[in-house]
Amino acid sequence: MKLYIIGVGLIGGSFVLDLKNFGDYQVIGIDNDNENLKIAIKRGIIDKVGSLNNINEADIIILSTPVDISLKIILNLLDSINNRCLIFDVGSTKQTICDLVENHPKRNQFLATHPIAGTEFSGSKAAVLGLFKNKIQILCEVNKTRKDLLNLALEKFSLLGMIIREMTPSEHDNHMAYVSHLSHISSFMLGKTVLDFETANNILDLAGSGFESTVRLAKSSSEMWTPILLQNKKNIIKTLNIYISNLENFKNYLNNNNEKNISEEIKFTNQLTNILNGIVKNKNK
Amino acid sequence: MKLYIIGVGLIGGSFVLDLKNFGDYQVIGIDNDNENLKIAIKRGIIDKVGSLNNINEADIIILSTPVDISLKIILNLLDSINNRCLIFDVGSTKQTICDLVENHPKRNQFLATHPIAGTEFSGSKAAVLGLFKNKIQILCEVNKTRKDLLNLALEKFSLLGMIIREMTPSEHDNHMAYVSHLSHISSFMLGKTVLDFETANNILDLAGSGFESTVRLAKSSSEMWTPILLQNKKNIIKTLNIYISNLENFKNYLNNNNEKNISEEIKFTNQLTNILNGIVKNKNK
Repeated sequence: MKLYIIGVGLIGGSFVLDLKNFGDYQVIGIDNDNENLKIAIKRGIIDKVGSLNNINEADIIILSTPVDISLKIILNLLDSINNRCLIFDVGSTKQTICDLVENHPKRNQFLATHPIAGTEFSGSKAAVLGLFKNKIQILCEVNKTRKDLLNLALEKFSLLGMIIREMTPSEHDNHMAYVSHLSHISSFMLGKTVLDFETANNILDLAGSGFESTVRLAKSSSEMWTPILLQNKKNIIKTLNIYISNLENFKNYLNNNNEKNISEEIKFTNQLTNILNGIVKNKNK
Repeated sequence: MKLYIIGVGLIGGSFVLDLKNFGDYQVIGIDNDNENLKIAIKRGIIDKVGSLNNINEADIIILSTPVDISLKIILNLLDSINNRCLIFDVGSTKQTICDLVENHPKRNQFLATHPIAGTEFSGSKAAVLGLFKNKIQILCEVNKTRKDLLNLALEKFSLLGMIIREMTPSEHDNHMAYVSHLSHISSFMLGKTVLDFETANNILDLAGSGFESTVRLAKSSSEMWTPILLQNKKNIIKTLNIYISNLENFKNYLNNNNEKNISEEIKFTNQLTNILNGIVKNKNK
């Protein structure tokens, strides 16, 4: 089976590392970063480097580029694939890509997915075996994918131990604004606030593991995150406004020595303790 | 040597667990939570439960209560101690306590410290051996502590592997607003924003390890953090204003599709990667 992976990074790379344990694949990688492709060959992620010119030979295509690149190439990919080929993307936004392919004659060979897995690292060097075990795989608009191709995808996701959850692109993007995209902006801007005032040495000396945890996402790559944030900006701006207004309220409580409200706000968010312990447990399953 | 620990929690408890490896101490615990005291005895952190009425027998007092309680009792403690006793606090704010003791006749038996160590957990159950190895211990106004008592303290901190750094209370509180207190508020309010919109099940399913990391500090106890934030509110409000203004700018970039500025902001904060790797390395030393 010829498997093309376009954008050989953490997610796509981890997918094929796992899949290779369950079948015979020739994995062909396409990426605009030659260094990244070399690492992918060395690590046994891909078998050879390919080109979009031969994409019509593919049986499965994993589209795992940054989400702006995905939008730029998805229609051409659909134009070029043979009629037994399944193509699925793994991007963190779902509305823009679903809207774009909506009226393509080969829409039913595409499946929109978002695996909830990953770290703050990127590139083929960051791909790991077993990344998707017990992780949620979000699928959107499954009824628009051809039944045989949907079943093929479900079979692969099941081999990797993924847990399927379906939602509309709009629900997906709205949830992600809260539980992922806002966290990234909060980390980026917290990092900026501290970097503008503190020297590297002071941060190293004076910051504890709490700060390290809170800004861990500030390591995330601009290439990947700038287009995600722009494509989901409508939802993100809504969550940012709520977040900023919560921060303003908290500031006013401080200003007015409102001990009772500060204490209540902290206790309210302490509810997260059990939920977060659940996330850690899932991660380590 | 009679060592009193007032507030038998993560920091005070970890201190005596370590100290006991390097000398003969009778450790007497005082705490308003009987359950916590029972655990402390069971875990061998304290040898017995004591009372403030006998505090004049103490050779060393570790004051590790929440910072509002410390302010309430420090003057009485100084009134009551014998003249060979060293008392040091470990609180996350330094200006308020240093101001309060400034003119006490026994000011020179007090040392203001802040060990940069800890987790989001609290209570004697959270105390661990080796917590302070290679961790920074901030000391304020060392010249106001009697030389023999300062040396006694330095000797103990050195046994635990702590790295001493001196600064004024005002410098301390200003730095902490940036590298610690702001992170906590950012986490609390991010947690609140998400909890107000998402169900526990959705957070569990849809949030990845990134969200978990960003809001980890939202587990922190209100009892400990409400008074810290109030005592350092002047510095914190300044950092909160900068943080909110950075978030507003970022929102405007999104609104205006300003890809270049979004990308630059993310790349700027990516500088933190090396610094954060340093913090993780320090943690694991």
